[in-house]
Amino acid sequence: MPDAIITLTTDFGEGSPYVAALKGVILATNPAARILDLSHHIPPQDLRHTAFFLAAAFPYFPAEVLHVVVVDPGVGSGRALLYVQTAGHRLLVPDNGCWTDLARNDPAPLVIRLAEQRYWRPCVSRTFHGRDILAPVAGHLSLGVDPRQLGPVVTEWVRLDPRPVAARAEGWFGEVVFVDHFGNLITNLPGSLWREHGARVFVAEHEVLTRVATYAEAPAGTTVVLQSSTEVLEVAVTQGSAAALLQARVGTPVRVLKPPGG
Amino acid sequence: MPDAIITLTTDFGEGSPYVAALKGVILATNPAARILDLSHHIPPQDLRHTAFFLAAAFPYFPAEVLHVVVVDPGVGSGRALLYVQTAGHRLLVPDNGCWTDLARNDPAPLVIRLAEQRYWRPCVSRTFHGRDILAPVAGHLSLGVDPRQLGPVVTEWVRLDPRPVAARAEGWFGEVVFVDHFGNLITNLPGSLWREHGARVFVAEHEVLTRVATYAEAPAGTTVVLQSSTEVLEVAVTQGSAAALLQARVGTPVRVLKPPGG
Amino acid sequence: MPDAIITLTTDFGEGSPYVAALKGVILATNPAARILDLSHHIPPQDLRHTAFFLAAAFPYFPAEVLHVVVVDPGVGSGRALLYVQTAGHRLLVPDNGCWTDLARNDPAPLVIRLAEQRYWRPCVSRTFHGRDILAPVAGHLSLGVDPRQLGPVVTEWVRLDPRPVAARAEGWFGEVVFVDHFGNLITNLPGSLWREHGARVFVAEHEVLTRVATYAEAPAGTTVVLQSSTEVLEVAVTQGSAAALLQARVGTPVRVLKPPGG
Repeated sequence: MPDAIITLTTDFGEGSPYVAALKGVILATNPAARILDLSHHIPPQDLRHTAFFLAAAFPYFPAEVLHVVVVDPGVGSGRALLYVQTAGHRLLVPDNGCWTDLARNDPAPLVIRLAEQRYWRPCVSRTFHGRDILAPVAGHLSLGVDPRQLGPVVTEWVRLDPRPVAARAEGWFGEVVFVDHFGNLITNLPGSLWREHGARVFVAEHEVLTRVATYAEAPAGTTVVLQSSTEVLEVAVTQGSAAALLQARVGTPVRVLKPPGG
Repeated sequence: MPDAIITLTTDFGEGSPYVAALKGVILATNPAARILDLSHHIPPQDLRHTAFFLAAAFPYFPAEVLHVVVVDPGVGSGRALLYVQTAGHRLLVPDNGCWTDLARNDPAPLVIRLAEQRYWRPCVSRTFHGRDILAPVAGHLSLGVDPRQLGPVVTEWVRLDPRPVAARAEGWFGEVVFVDHFGNLITNLPGSLWREHGARVFVAEHEVLTRVATYAEAPAGTTVVLQSSTEVLEVAVTQGSAAALLQARVGTPVRVLKPPGG
Repeated sequence: MPDAIITLTTDFGEGSPYVAALKGVILATNPAARILDLSHHIPPQDLRHTAFFLAAAFPYFPAEVLHVVVVDPGVGSGRALLYVQTAGHRLLVPDNGCWTDLARNDPAPLVIRLAEQRYWRPCVSRTFHGRDILAPVAGHLSLGVDPRQLGPVVTEWVRLDPRPVAARAEGWFGEVVFVDHFGNLITNLPGSLWREHGARVFVAEHEVLTRVATYAEAPAGTTVVLQSSTEVLEVAVTQGSAAALLQARVGTPVRVLKPPGG
C-alpha cells in the first residue's frame, strides 16, 4: 500500500508559518504521511470560494486521499469540526458548509463530529484548531484509526447553498463564481445553455458575440463564450484577460437571454 | 523507516527556478528524499523574518526531519555554512544567526561547519551555495551520512538577538514582528501581559479596547487583543485586517501600559 | 526503487483548482506517484519564459524524474502533445517549442506524439488537455508503461529559438531574459564576455561600472555585473533590486561594448 496522502487547502497564504505548522503536526503524528498542497490562496474566510474550490478539485482525486480544509472564520466559537465521507471523498473540515456543494448529489454522507480529545494535540489553542485538532486527527486517520473512533455520527450540519441561478421567462440569470489566473470568467450557469438555445450572453451589460469550442478558434483579443473544462458557461478573452477587459469579478451578473419568441 | 523528509525555506519567491534547482540537486543525490516546501516567501534577505519563521514553524516538526534554510545575503563572502542540531531539530543554514532564536533555550547546540567538499557539487558557484553546497549535503545526510563527517564542530557562530522588549516602570514596549495573511499583528510581547495586569494596549497611538479569547467573540470589524496561537500578544480586526485598519506593519511599536498606581 | 517522481510546471497560478485537478488525476492513475511542484508562476501563455525556466531548472534533476509542463496557448487546436526524452530528461509537453532550448545540444531527442487514447481520461475536454491527457499519461508512465506505447515516434516538431545575441564589430547585443525575485537581471549574454574583453556593460543606457565575483564584494546599493549562477551575464544591485533601480524588465536591451580598438 502506498503511504497515506493528505492534502491541504487553507486561506493562510503561500509560505505562511501556519501552513508549516500544519505540516509539522501531521508529520509528528505520522512521519510517513505524504502531504500535498492544494491551495493556500483561498481568499481569507471566504466560504463560497472554498465551496467552489472543493467542488472543482476534489472530484479528480482517488478515494484513499484525505483532504484537510482549514478555512475557519468561526474558530473558537461553538462550531463543530467534522470528518466527512461523501461522494467517494474523505474530508476533515470545520462545520461551516464549505463541503456541502461537493455533496449535493449524495443523499447520505457520513458525518462525524470530532470529539475524542485523545487524537488532538494535548494543548488546544482558541484560535488555531487546524493545527491543534484537524492536523493531528489527519495524522491518526492516516495511521489507520477508524473514523468512528473520532466522535459521534451526526445528522445535522451547516449547509451552504451554491449561488443560485434564476430561471425566468426571458432566460437564465447567474453570476461569475471564479476568476482564474488567466482572467477567464467561470460562471454558475450550465455550459449548454448558450449553445442549445441560440441565446444571447451578457456579462453585466456587455454582450458576448463569439461562440467557440476552444480558445484557439478565435483571433487573439476576442471575447468568447465557451463550455469550461468543468462544464459550465465560461467567458474568456483569447490570449488576454476577460476580467480586465470586461471589468468583471466574482459576483458580476451573467445572463443568457432566450431569443424573442424562443 | 519512512523515507527521509527535507524541508525548504527560502527567500527565492514562489515558482523560482532557483527553488526548482534545489529540488533537482537533492533528488539527484537521493531520489528517495521527500521534499516539503515550507516557505519561499521570506522577504528578500530578511534575517529577522527568517528567525521569526523558523521559531514559529520548526517546533511542530518531528526530530527526523531535516530543514534546509536558504536566506543568504552573505553568499560568496567568507561566511560559513552550518549543520545545526538544536532543541530536537536538524538544520542546514548559512551562519547568519537566523536559527539562534530557535535555539535560545538550548545551552549546547551541536554546530558543524561544512568543510568536506566531497559532499558538495563538483563545481561551486560564487552566488548560489544553497544549490551547490546545502542541497547536496542535505541529500547525503538523508542517505545516512554522519553529520560529523561534514566538517569540524565549531563553538562560535553569528547570533541574531530577537527583537527586544523593553520593561519599564510604566509598562512593556515591544513591536509587531509579523503580519499574517489576514492582517493580524503578531508581536514580541508575551501573551499574558495584557491580561494579567489589567493594562492598556496600544498599537502606535491607537488604543485597543476589546479583549477576547478568540476572534468569534466580537462582532465583525472590532479591533481586539488576544493571545495568539503562538502565545504572544496579537492584535486583530475580526473578519478584517488590523494591518490595514491600524496602518501597522513589522516594526510598528506596541505598548502595554500598566494602570496608574498598578 | 523509490516511487516515481512527477514534477509540475504550469502557468495556472499558485493555488489554482486546475493545479489541484492535475494532482488528482495523476494520483487517481497512480496513488504512489510523488508529485513535486516546480512552478505555477510561469507568466500566462509565455512560451519564452517557459523555455527559460525549463533550461534553468531541469538540468539539475536526475533522469528518473518525469516533468509535466502545462503552458498551452494552443489547447484545442490541432497542436500535438508530446513525450520527449532529451539530454537525460523526460518530459510531457505540448508541441509549442518550449522544450527545444533545453535540447539544443542533443542531435537526436526521442519525441513521441501522444495518440493512444486508452491512456487518457475517458472524456477529453476542449480546453484542458493537461488534466485530460498529460496527467493520466504521466500516471501511466510512472506505473511503467513503455513510452513507445503512447503513440508514434515523430521527427518534426515546433522549435522556439532562444532569444538571439547579436555579435557585431562594436560588441555583443542581448537582452534581459529573466528578472528574479530579488530584482537581479539575468541576460542571454555569456557570462565571460564582460570579463575577458575588458568591455563596457550597459543596461539600456545605464552603464554598469562595478565588476564583482559575488554580491558581498560591493557595498549595499551598488549596481554590479557578475557571472550568474547559471553562467550568464547578470546585473544586480547589492541588497537591492536592479530591476527597480534601472527600470529594467524582460526584453530590456543589454550591451557589452568592446573597448575602442579592442
